Amino acid sequence: MNDIDRAARAVREDRLWQRHLDMAKLGGTAKGGVNRQALSPEDAAARNQLMGWAKARGFSVFTDAIGNLFVRRAGSDDEARPILSGSHMDSQPTGGRFDGMYGVLAAFEALEALEDAGVRTRRPIEAVAWTNEEGSRFQPGAMGSAVFAGHYLLASALTVTDWKGVVLREALAETLAAAPATRRGDAPGFALDGYVEAHIEQGPRLENAGTTIGVVTSIQGSRRFMVEILGEEAHAGTTPRAARKDAFVAAVAIAGAMQAATRDTDDTLRFTIGRVDVQPGSPNTVPGRVSFSIDMRHPSSEVLDAHEAKLRAIVAAGAAPCTASIERTMAVAPTVFDPDVIGLVRDAARRQGFSHMDMPSGAGHDAMHIAGLCPTGMVFVPCERGISHNEVENATPADLAAGTRVLVEALLRLANR
Amino acid sequence: MNDIDRAARAVREDRLWQRHLDMAKLGGTAKGGVNRQALSPEDAAARNQLMGWAKARGFSVFTDAIGNLFVRRAGSDDEARPILSGSHMDSQPTGGRFDGMYGVLAAFEALEALEDAGVRTRRPIEAVAWTNEEGSRFQPGAMGSAVFAGHYLLASALTVTDWKGVVLREALAETLAAAPATRRGDAPGFALDGYVEAHIEQGPRLENAGTTIGVVTSIQGSRRFMVEILGEEAHAGTTPRAARKDAFVAAVAIAGAMQAATRDTDDTLRFTIGRVDVQPGSPNTVPGRVSFSIDMRHPSSEVLDAHEAKLRAIVAAGAAPCTASIERTMAVAPTVFDPDVIGLVRDAARRQGFSHMDMPSGAGHDAMHIAGLCPTGMVFVPCERGISHNEVENATPADLAAGTRVLVEALLRLANR
Repeated sequence: MNDIDRAARAVREDRLWQRHLDMAKLGGTAKGGVNRQALSPEDAAARNQLMGWAKARGFSVFTDAIGNLFVRRAGSDDEARPILSGSHMDSQPTGGRFDGMYGVLAAFEALEALEDAGVRTRRPIEAVAWTNEEGSRFQPGAMGSAVFAGHYLLASALTVTDWKGVVLREALAETLAAAPATRRGDAPGFALDGYVEAHIEQGPRLENAGTTIGVVTSIQGSRRFMVEILGEEAHAGTTPRAARKDAFVAAVAIAGAMQAATRDTDDTLRFTIGRVDVQPGSPNTVPGRVSFSIDMRHPSSEVLDAHEAKLRAIVAAGAAPCTASIERTMAVAPTVFDPDVIGLVRDAARRQGFSHMDMPSGAGHDAMHIAGLCPTGMVFVPCERGISHNEVENATPADLAAGTRVLVEALLRLANR
Repeated sequence: MNDIDRAARAVREDRLWQRHLDMAKLGGTAKGGVNRQALSPEDAAARNQLMGWAKARGFSVFTDAIGNLFVRRAGSDDEARPILSGSHMDSQPTGGRFDGMYGVLAAFEALEALEDAGVRTRRPIEAVAWTNEEGSRFQPGAMGSAVFAGHYLLASALTVTDWKGVVLREALAETLAAAPATRRGDAPGFALDGYVEAHIEQGPRLENAGTTIGVVTSIQGSRRFMVEILGEEAHAGTTPRAARKDAFVAAVAIAGAMQAATRDTDDTLRFTIGRVDVQPGSPNTVPGRVSFSIDMRHPSSEVLDAHEAKLRAIVAAGAAPCTASIERTMAVAPTVFDPDVIGLVRDAARRQGFSHMDMPSGAGHDAMHIAGLCPTGMVFVPCERGISHNEVENATPADLAAGTRVLVEALLRLANR
C-alpha cells in the first residue's frame, strides 16, 4: 500500500471527534455551543490544549507577533518552504463547535496520521490556528491571516479596541502570557509553498445534495457598513409625531428599503443587519440615535458595487427629519482558488471514493488572505441543516473524517512537489 | 395686602433658580443634563440636599416604606389632613434639569414663601418627592405614588429588579441609609385633603401659544407593551434568504406596520418604540431574537383599545417565518382632575395676571395616582421647544417662578378650606 493510502487510512475518526468534544468544553455554553471569542481566556485555554497535544507528538510549536499559532511536522528537507493547513479556534459569542475548530483539528489530525503511518514528506507541513477570524470582539475579522499576508498592518491591528475599550495589544499579551509559545520572527509572515483549509460548509448545499466533499473553487466578496441615524430625544408622551425626530422610525424606513432593494431573484446576494443599537434605550423616550451594521456578500464585485450604490442612495434619500450616514468599514474582494490545488482536492475525493461537488464559499475564510501568497484551496464538509454561527451547529464524525482524509492526501501531494 | 398676595410675592425667582442649578450638579452630565436614576447614589445626594434645605428652615422631614420623601410645614390645626404638593427627583438616563425636580422645588419654594411672608395655614402643607417616577431603571414608573395610593403593592415593588439584576429592596435600603429620614408609619399612604403638582409641560403647546400657565384638566391614558420576535441564528455569508429566519427582518416589518397603523390624522395618539434589543448582536450573524418596547398614549380609553387591537393583529399576522408575541406590561387609564382644583389654578393664574390655557397632560405624572385619593390638579409651565427627556431640556427662571406663584395661591386656598 502506498504512502497516500496509508496516511489517509491512518486518519482516526474517533480521535478527531474526541478532540472536537474536548475543545468544545473550552468556552462551552449551556445550549451546547461555544463562546470562545478571540484573545479571551477561553482562546488561551484552546491554545494550551492544542500545544499540549502537539508536544505529546513531538511536533514543534511557534507563534508570531499577531498570535497566530503554528504546529510544525518536520520535512526530510526541513529548509524547504512548508505547506500550511488550518483555520481558527475563536468563535462567535453564540457559536458552534465546528466553525474554524474543524480546520485546525483536521490539520492536526493530518499531521498525526502522517506520523502514525510513518510517512515522511519532503516539505515540512504545519497546522495553523489563525488569530481572530470571527471579528465579533475585535474587528475586522480574519485578522491573523490578513496580518500574516500583509493585507492589514500589524500596528493597526494592535491598536483595535473591543466594545469594552480593551486594546487588542493588551488582550494579545495576556493570551500569549497564559498560553506561551516560541516566537517565530519579528513580523508575521514567511514563505509558503501551499495552503489547504478544511471547514464545515456553513450552508445547506452539501447536505441537500447528499454530497460529502465540497471542492471549494472561490470565496464570494464581502463588504461591511455602519449606518448611523441622528434624531432628537424627546418625551414619548408629550411630543406630537409632527414635532418628532425619531431615529428608530427613520431606521425602520431605511432598513426596510435596504431589505427590499437587496432581494435578488436568484437569492445569491447576502444582506444582513446583525447589530442594532438604539439610544438612549428608554421605553418612554423617543430614540435620538440609532446605528446598525450591514454585512453584504456576493461572488461578483460588480454586483456588490451596484448594491452598495443602492444602499448609499437609500441613506441619502430616506432619513428626514433625521440625518443619516453610511460608512464602509470593510471590503474583501472575491477570491479565486488555485486550479492545481482545486484539482488535487477534487482528485483526492474521487480517488478515495467520496461524493463531491465544486462550489463557491459563501463565508469568508482565512484562505482568502493566504491565496495571494501561495497555491491555495479549501475542503468543505456538510453541516446539519446548513446552520452555523449558532450554538446548535452540528456535523457528523464520519463527514469530518472524510474531509480530513481528502485533506491529508492533498497536503501529502503538495508537500512532495 | 392680603396673605395670598404676600405669599405669592414672597416667591423668589433667584432662589428657586439657584436651587435648580444646585440640584443639577447631582448626577450632572457633560451635555448639561442629569443622570439621576431612581435609588442611585445621585438620588440619595438629591434627598440629602432637599433635607438639608428643609432643616435649615425648621421644616420636619419624613419618609415612608417606598422611600417617598416628605417636607412638612405645620398648620395651625396640625391634626387636620394635610395638603400635598410635589413631584419626583429621579431622572431619565439622559434627562434634563427640570422634569420632576421643578415640581419638588416649586413646592419647597411655596413652603419657604409662606414662611417668609409669615402666613399661617390651617392645614399642614407638605412638599413631597415621590420615588422612581421615571421607571427607566426600575419598572413600572410612578412607583412611589402608585404604592402610596395602593394602586401597586409595596411587596411587588420591593422585588422588582433593574437590568443589572439589582433588587429594588436593596437599592432602596442603600439609598435610605445614605439619606436617612424619620419613617412615617409602616405602610405608605395617609389621608390627604388636596394635591397640586407643578411640572414643566414637556411639550410645545404653551411655548407655541406664548402662554405662561397651563391649567391641567386631565392626563392621557398610557399603555406599555413588549414585543418579542423569535427567529434562528445563522451565518450571514452562507445562509440563503429563503432559508433564513431573520428576527430583525420580521421586526422591521412589524414595527413599520405598527408605525403606519398609529398615524392618526389629528396627531393625538403617541406611539413610541424606545428600547430595541437585537440578539446576538454580531455583524455577521443573522439575528435570532429581537425584542422591543412600545409606549402608546391617548386621552381616550376607546382609542387606546382600538389601537391595541391593531397592534395585536399586526403581531399575529406579520412575523413568518419567525414567530412573534406581544404582551401588555402596563395600562394606566386616563385621569380627569378635580373641577374645584382646576378652578383654583385657573383663578390664581387669572387673578395674578398670567396668561393661561386649559390643557390635558401628554405625560403621565404622579398626580394620576393621587387623584383617586383627594381633590387633585396640576400647574404646567413652558419648556424650551417642548423638549424633555433630553439633556438639553430647558425652562426660564421667570416661567418657573410664575408657576410657583400660582401654586402657592392654590395651596393656600386649599389649606384654609
